Amino acid sequence: MSKSIFYHAGCPVCVSAEHDILNLVKDVEVVNIGEDRFRIAEAQKAGIQSVPALVTPNGNVLHINFGASMADVIG
Amino acid sequence: MSKSIFYHAGCPVCVSAEHDILNLVKDVEVVNIGEDRFRIAEAQKAGIQSVPALVTPNGNVLHINFGASMADVIG
Repeated sequence: MSKSIFYHAGCPVCVSAEHDILNLVKDVEVVNIGEDRFRIAEAQKAGIQSVPALVTPNGNVLHINFGASMADVIG
Repeated sequence: MSKSIFYHAGCPVCVSAEHDILNLVKDVEVVNIGEDRFRIAEAQKAGIQSVPALVTPNGNVLHINFGASMADVIG
């Protein structure tokens, strides 16, 4: 894939990071897994342990700051 | 400022994140505070608590994954 995917859960830390990432990185899809819960499994499969996180085009996961653990999001 | 600054300490987590960041973000200055120790104070003043971390052009700090705490770097 050639785009990055930014996963977040709508928390303040996530929103702040999203703002920065969208300014810095091109071709980013933004996914709110707090709302689009069907994409939680996809995020976990990508290796995401906490949000916000950015999955790079080559599949690496960059966990950014710390908003919420996946366990918190899954609830 | 218009560029971002990526601070790291040369650890494997840092090197991997650096590779990703340089691919995704334009105009990034890379600083190895493990080598350029006189820049540790600058990193701390920017709000960096662990490396690797990216300081955005507007001064926000994005802590990325987790390589080492500043306490570990300072030794």
